[in-house]
Amino acid sequence: MPHEYKTTRRVEFPDTDMAGIMHFTNFFKFMESAEHEFFRTHGLTMHDNGAEQMVGWARVSASCNYLRPAHYPDLLEVHLLVGKMTDRTIQYSFSFRVIDEADGGEPGPVIAKGELVVSHVAKSKDDARMRGALIPEEVTRMIQSAPAES
Amino acid sequence: MPHEYKTTRRVEFPDTDMAGIMHFTNFFKFMESAEHEFFRTHGLTMHDNGAEQMVGWARVSASCNYLRPAHYPDLLEVHLLVGKMTDRTIQYSFSFRVIDEADGGEPGPVIAKGELVVSHVAKSKDDARMRGALIPEEVTRMIQSAPAES
Amino acid sequence: MPHEYKTTRRVEFPDTDMAGIMHFTNFFKFMESAEHEFFRTHGLTMHDNGAEQMVGWARVSASCNYLRPAHYPDLLEVHLLVGKMTDRTIQYSFSFRVIDEADGGEPGPVIAKGELVVSHVAKSKDDARMRGALIPEEVTRMIQSAPAES
Amino acid sequence: MPHEYKTTRRVEFPDTDMAGIMHFTNFFKFMESAEHEFFRTHGLTMHDNGAEQMVGWARVSASCNYLRPAHYPDLLEVHLLVGKMTDRTIQYSFSFRVIDEADGGEPGPVIAKGELVVSHVAKSKDDARMRGALIPEEVTRMIQSAPAES
Repeated sequence: MPHEYKTTRRVEFPDTDMAGIMHFTNFFKFMESAEHEFFRTHGLTMHDNGAEQMVGWARVSASCNYLRPAHYPDLLEVHLLVGKMTDRTIQYSFSFRVIDEADGGEPGPVIAKGELVVSHVAKSKDDARMRGALIPEEVTRMIQSAPAES
Repeated sequence: MPHEYKTTRRVEFPDTDMAGIMHFTNFFKFMESAEHEFFRTHGLTMHDNGAEQMVGWARVSASCNYLRPAHYPDLLEVHLLVGKMTDRTIQYSFSFRVIDEADGGEPGPVIAKGELVVSHVAKSKDDARMRGALIPEEVTRMIQSAPAES
Repeated sequence: MPHEYKTTRRVEFPDTDMAGIMHFTNFFKFMESAEHEFFRTHGLTMHDNGAEQMVGWARVSASCNYLRPAHYPDLLEVHLLVGKMTDRTIQYSFSFRVIDEADGGEPGPVIAKGELVVSHVAKSKDDARMRGALIPEEVTRMIQSAPAES
Repeated sequence: MPHEYKTTRRVEFPDTDMAGIMHFTNFFKFMESAEHEFFRTHGLTMHDNGAEQMVGWARVSASCNYLRPAHYPDLLEVHLLVGKMTDRTIQYSFSFRVIDEADGGEPGPVIAKGELVVSHVAKSKDDARMRGALIPEEVTRMIQSAPAES
């Protein structure tokens, strides 16, 4: 059962700001994007506005430490690691590196580290509120926490 | 019955890109924001994910001509003018000016001109698709096309 | 010499809005993204905050016609076609289709059509303003207008 | 000397996602927006692409805890509190409440809490990198850490 996922994503022009670097909020979009890819790769769905109820994963907390800036058009490696899982929440940690495209695609040092804690939620069509829900068995069967040394 | 609306909005840091100016897509967000304010000011709702059906205004087309860039932290005047109305669609035109905050708040020359054509839409809870719908009477009672010379 | 470019891009969760579809401004980001990829694929640079001067491509105008919505997690085909070129500007047209991933990757009908007109610009370090500039020879050597029947 | 700042900001339509709530990354944009307003209100500049050097405030870390969702078109109160200051960094904490516009503008319970740590940076025109810099005296003269009980 997988406990990690690696993907790449390029810093695009509109991801930048007038300081000439990627705007800090986009690291959170890159984390979420890797999380969705991780699920999709394993045949799982992160969000469904279904006919009977909407199910998804609400963010409980999000954090990021910025060590070095990312620039356009850097190609970033995003490494997702599954952390602590409860029956309703999953913790993910993320690390970002710039890939050296000229030199065989080797990733450089870590430029940012992030974390998301997400909670499974459901909302029935008659209900005004999303409520916390047990993680579906198809998810717990598929993914697991990374071993401590990861 | 009103046929125009003026509001102001400041160019914020994340609205910029590495060219040092407001990213061109944000002019469209500023147009939509003025459209929503125009409705809200007149007690109308632009979008409602209601219990029985979702109603809103789908974009039919959007365009913008860029004459001069906008910079952080410019305060922009956004001028909305109601154009042609059919029983299902409304055309809006927009002009943008930078307000001279040091000089009594006078707007400068037009820096961009835009246009949106929007269509009223509804989607029942049992339905997978949004469908075009007649503009509600509360809207046609409230707003009207600008006179030709505006 | 190439006069068109095709790429794909997935509609991501934060690209959507509460109407359950991709927010209309993101079609413009997808156009710009395809334009940058088109340049990068041919060894050209769209934007450079260089040591002596900043060079890039300012937007003169942008427009889009929306025929059908795009949904998360649709995979879109973005087709860029080079239109009229002057010595300072390039016109691009774009069409968007949803790729049927279950059925061998065939693109469906066009869901949106867009256009960008962009102008080459340069700004010296001593200068407060970006100014229109002749399109560099490396670009005119590389890309050309599509034939009329495209 | 001020150690806090309160402002309001409305959740706009493009701030939402298909879950029908404000996308979590926008809480970070609202924090940064309050930070910029706080500076501007006291005659300070957060970012300057000046002729000789660029000066600004790089993000060292960012975090947010989400207690309840924000919806379109909620009017949010954003409360900024200055935390620990060093000679190069400032820590800010933020709390978000939904304002009850129908009931005299009273803010409800806290829906989210965030934190930013930012570092003053400067980049000379000849230099490829932003470097940490001492906080300018005009800033240390103007703002101060909140007392412990805030």
